[in-house]
Amino acid sequence: MTEFLRQQQDLLLQQWRKEGTLGHPRTAPGGHNRISDVPGVTVGHSTLADGEIQTGVTAIMPSKENLFTAPLPCAAAVLNGFAKPVGLVQIEELGLLQTPILLSNTLAVGTLFTTLVKQAIARNPELGRSLPTVNPLALECNDGWLNDIQALAVSETMALEALDSARADFARGSVGAGRGMSCFAMKGGIGSASRLIPSLNATLGVLVLANYGALNAFTPGGVPMGDRIAPLLPGLAPQRDAGSIIIVMATDAPLDTRQLKRIARRAGAGLGRTGSYWGHGSGDIAVAFSTQRQPVPPDDAALEPMLAAASEATEFAVLDALLSADAVTGFRQHHRPGLRTVLDTLASTL
Amino acid sequence: MTEFLRQQQDLLLQQWRKEGTLGHPRTAPGGHNRISDVPGVTVGHSTLADGEIQTGVTAIMPSKENLFTAPLPCAAAVLNGFAKPVGLVQIEELGLLQTPILLSNTLAVGTLFTTLVKQAIARNPELGRSLPTVNPLALECNDGWLNDIQALAVSETMALEALDSARADFARGSVGAGRGMSCFAMKGGIGSASRLIPSLNATLGVLVLANYGALNAFTPGGVPMGDRIAPLLPGLAPQRDAGSIIIVMATDAPLDTRQLKRIARRAGAGLGRTGSYWGHGSGDIAVAFSTQRQPVPPDDAALEPMLAAASEATEFAVLDALLSADAVTGFRQHHRPGLRTVLDTLASTL
Amino acid sequence: MTEFLRQQQDLLLQQWRKEGTLGHPRTAPGGHNRISDVPGVTVGHSTLADGEIQTGVTAIMPSKENLFTAPLPCAAAVLNGFAKPVGLVQIEELGLLQTPILLSNTLAVGTLFTTLVKQAIARNPELGRSLPTVNPLALECNDGWLNDIQALAVSETMALEALDSARADFARGSVGAGRGMSCFAMKGGIGSASRLIPSLNATLGVLVLANYGALNAFTPGGVPMGDRIAPLLPGLAPQRDAGSIIIVMATDAPLDTRQLKRIARRAGAGLGRTGSYWGHGSGDIAVAFSTQRQPVPPDDAALEPMLAAASEATEFAVLDALLSADAVTGFRQHHRPGLRTVLDTLASTL
Amino acid sequence: MTEFLRQQQDLLLQQWRKEGTLGHPRTAPGGHNRISDVPGVTVGHSTLADGEIQTGVTAIMPSKENLFTAPLPCAAAVLNGFAKPVGLVQIEELGLLQTPILLSNTLAVGTLFTTLVKQAIARNPELGRSLPTVNPLALECNDGWLNDIQALAVSETMALEALDSARADFARGSVGAGRGMSCFAMKGGIGSASRLIPSLNATLGVLVLANYGALNAFTPGGVPMGDRIAPLLPGLAPQRDAGSIIIVMATDAPLDTRQLKRIARRAGAGLGRTGSYWGHGSGDIAVAFSTQRQPVPPDDAALEPMLAAASEATEFAVLDALLSADAVTGFRQHHRPGLRTVLDTLASTL
Repeated sequence: MTEFLRQQQDLLLQQWRKEGTLGHPRTAPGGHNRISDVPGVTVGHSTLADGEIQTGVTAIMPSKENLFTAPLPCAAAVLNGFAKPVGLVQIEELGLLQTPILLSNTLAVGTLFTTLVKQAIARNPELGRSLPTVNPLALECNDGWLNDIQALAVSETMALEALDSARADFARGSVGAGRGMSCFAMKGGIGSASRLIPSLNATLGVLVLANYGALNAFTPGGVPMGDRIAPLLPGLAPQRDAGSIIIVMATDAPLDTRQLKRIARRAGAGLGRTGSYWGHGSGDIAVAFSTQRQPVPPDDAALEPMLAAASEATEFAVLDALLSADAVTGFRQHHRPGLRTVLDTLASTL
Repeated sequence: MTEFLRQQQDLLLQQWRKEGTLGHPRTAPGGHNRISDVPGVTVGHSTLADGEIQTGVTAIMPSKENLFTAPLPCAAAVLNGFAKPVGLVQIEELGLLQTPILLSNTLAVGTLFTTLVKQAIARNPELGRSLPTVNPLALECNDGWLNDIQALAVSETMALEALDSARADFARGSVGAGRGMSCFAMKGGIGSASRLIPSLNATLGVLVLANYGALNAFTPGGVPMGDRIAPLLPGLAPQRDAGSIIIVMATDAPLDTRQLKRIARRAGAGLGRTGSYWGHGSGDIAVAFSTQRQPVPPDDAALEPMLAAASEATEFAVLDALLSADAVTGFRQHHRPGLRTVLDTLASTL
Repeated sequence: MTEFLRQQQDLLLQQWRKEGTLGHPRTAPGGHNRISDVPGVTVGHSTLADGEIQTGVTAIMPSKENLFTAPLPCAAAVLNGFAKPVGLVQIEELGLLQTPILLSNTLAVGTLFTTLVKQAIARNPELGRSLPTVNPLALECNDGWLNDIQALAVSETMALEALDSARADFARGSVGAGRGMSCFAMKGGIGSASRLIPSLNATLGVLVLANYGALNAFTPGGVPMGDRIAPLLPGLAPQRDAGSIIIVMATDAPLDTRQLKRIARRAGAGLGRTGSYWGHGSGDIAVAFSTQRQPVPPDDAALEPMLAAASEATEFAVLDALLSADAVTGFRQHHRPGLRTVLDTLASTL
Repeated sequence: MTEFLRQQQDLLLQQWRKEGTLGHPRTAPGGHNRISDVPGVTVGHSTLADGEIQTGVTAIMPSKENLFTAPLPCAAAVLNGFAKPVGLVQIEELGLLQTPILLSNTLAVGTLFTTLVKQAIARNPELGRSLPTVNPLALECNDGWLNDIQALAVSETMALEALDSARADFARGSVGAGRGMSCFAMKGGIGSASRLIPSLNATLGVLVLANYGALNAFTPGGVPMGDRIAPLLPGLAPQRDAGSIIIVMATDAPLDTRQLKRIARRAGAGLGRTGSYWGHGSGDIAVAFSTQRQPVPPDDAALEPMLAAASEATEFAVLDALLSADAVTGFRQHHRPGLRTVLDTLASTL
């Protein structure tokens, strides 16, 4: 087996060297291969990179509307629940997204919650009074390897900055909530991808906050690369599929919450292709929303290409995160290199 | 029908006048008829009662142990998910309680989360570093009728005060998180009850934060009382079964998380007996934990009396909250009388 | 307490003697106070009453349409899953009802499944070939106390007979699937109720197959009656809240599957009012469907009266089953009296 | 991209030609790489191959014990619920397996249910009388492409034959329930694999009934092969990821039901690696049981290698099904070739 594995690895590296990509997408991406290919969806970051503090906040804005008064269909799928999100209970009950989505490190969830509450109050003076309270949605990964997570460095100001800076042409990699994240023992972070669904005249966009995976499990393009990469990463931290991944999906197809849940779940198949087995310590959660507020849902049989796209876009959003991420050195001098550099090094030896 | 209903109501009021209780418990309570009858369980409050600010925090301490290193079996049941708790996703996955339980108003959840994080860090220096992060458990009800909830008056200091003041002999009614709560258009708040389970040599304790229910649905002791009480409450706020109830159950029976979930769910039957139909806008969530860390669970058939006790103790904990609560006037001069006064008034007319 | 309880019991018996009813409904029933008040819904029975064989089948027909090609929105809520239904997994995924609903004894589920398959094939020649297979829905209770359940006496012919005999003006009590059922140590069986929802211009109908409950838990109209009834039932079988209840809800409100699930869950509150705590050995399952095939769902806030109605109609459908059921003697000479006779006896002593 | 894809495909075919395998397992299999590597677990088949009738039954026997009186810890994960299993509701509630597991075609579920009931009655004379009823577990896939599924050819006799013929050294491929199944537009059926978990001194075994997948999604060993295989399969049936897969996992690790559910879920990651996205019409269900009746469960962190093994064993059990399956021609002269022949043909052109 070793010989063929080696040959497959060499081929993957050749693909990388010639095309700058990994794997073989089967369906066409949207214009920029990002979640913002879904009209109206924007993303903003606030990044803190200062010695042992390497963290940040990422905001996904589904639209510019007041989501409290004009909520969007939404659903979530918990693949592995070693996680501390807030907002999922009400989304499960009512199927509605009432705020932008904030991502950050695990211990910042309280701060994200309060920020979203204050922003919603500012726009809705009777919130919690004659109107119900708001349901903030915030999700997290643990960046405690690269970031001094106990410093609780994420502030409400940073969360607001992420919200206010949202745009279609957003950065990926070691930015925002992705700043301190690790993935397959290398640098993880923010990645994105999109897929067109011509039969529904719609786009599916995915954004991931990737912070999971043991190196020996890593299979970009289906090729196990862990044994090849490991010698380049001396002094590796103990490898577990821990650390979590958040997958946010957006679509302009008019899906209801039950259908969005079916879409969200397919993140799990895509993660499997990268080598993940949804590790014990990994909070693997997918959230999917539609930008169509009052959907007239298609028959479920029409979801078939959407399910395929959800798996594939998740897989490629993870690869995008890995390929976009610059190396970071942070807490306790822990270091994570970028996959791009790792692949270049390996490819140069061919 | 009206005649008989009237006679039943009169009987209930006579029972109230003679015995000071409502309804007919069928199983024996523990020593103090409180959640703290379960050995080691204590409760603390921090209350803020100042004009338009009528709110607070309640802490349930399952033990004095470091729950991060010695977590307890735990499960939750979401009866109606119009709610913003944090902590339930990981409890569903791992079945473990890692922190004390904090209750407060809806918009304070972020503050409760951060407080529990800081407390856990203080006791566990490697938390989030070489050890995983902690999963804080915080639940809420909307006290925005009596409390200026937008003031975000709950502070980390208050949450710590609730944690630090926990004791077996705790106050009920309009205290702590219960300060601003309403129930059946009267004053709600903190209530408690317990039941003995001789066959398991165990106790089941319940604490509720009661903030739900339309007056016309109110059936203490199974007797519809809404039409009798309504004339005493002129200018009632519009009645919906909104506002939420949190039910916390503790037991020293060695149950695993699957069994605790079965117990927690039975809160729903108990609520039904008070007249609740788990209203649309009511976040009705039950959490159950065992104080036995490494349970050797009994056969499920042995749970039968525990299921009956869970329903009944929930019902009587709600009655306790109503009967313990003093009247409060707060936000926008909104007022809620105590049930005790209401019943006295009605009984005096017999 | 005993004195007041006795007085309450006497009052309930007076109500029974004068009005022939128990309890105090708060919302108006439909024209016949049955599930068939929902236009198009019919019910049929096949009953086998022969010595030790006391069993049967009940069919609920949501419409006369071909449900395989014109499925209806549907959802289920499992209150306690000690049960052997078939069909719920696909309903959870797709939210569609593809066949009539069949009820019978536990060991007949295989026969019910096969009958529904054959009927669907007869109407849809390409089923399972160029078209997908069908998802039969069949639910059960254990009638093994009154019926020799091991005889497997229910046949496909009986199931077809139940389907073919469906009508709006159907029998209740000890008929069809209800023939061998027990409830609170008396005779259970088929009961029904309905409630009008003027704000949605709709009706909610409920049919129960009631086979649950320990006598000491019985609280008709909120009044504990177990101790009063027990002396009339010498040699009672050991009392557990075992045996199961199936609750089927129908509505012509245009609800989607998520909303129907919310409605179905409220059966639990209604059961609680009858004294149930959803016992360990009781398979307590509610199924709700809408007769509107392509719903344009109302806002969830509009569901409020539907939730109240679902609880109340469940409670009164159980009372209807008890009051409609004639005494049955069956397997091993086991006997269950009807509640009506029991109450007459008690009322005659006043 | 095309060039590299072609090269990767060539490499995979070379691997096939030289080693007779596909892909790169990372963890060591048990002695026979089958579910029966778990001590006590056996598998039996009954096969019907007669013109247009191509179907059968497969039985998985967890042990020789009377499972009704000595049930085993068990859990299930529904990845996509377009499926008609029976037995999952009670397993979710109580976490116990009370019968052997039967697999067959979709419309045979009723017959499987009745067979398991009769077998349990034969061994337990008070079942359903003074003892509760039994919860049969039966799962299915739709073999209607190769089999005249409307003929309802599966009999109780066949189901008994499968149960009675169970052995450790069982056949795979186009046998038993696998007889009429398709997978990636080729012949599917029964496959198996196992993995050792040294840290838990345990084995995880997997058996699949594979009947899912569109050819264009097929990625054995991570390499997309659909475009290469398609020309060999003229007149392909329309491709959808429909048809279902059942995954049965067995282990001798002493896991409780919550932990078994975590294990079962990981089938989803393994399916993803074969190219599946859990298609709309595919009932993808995993069931996991432990042969240790009264488990003292390890800490969840110890599950890490078990999670990885569950993913990988699922992936390789599917490859085993494909590589074990002989070609079948059946209903309406529909034909499915075996993957082995397909790969030989492709490899011969290198």
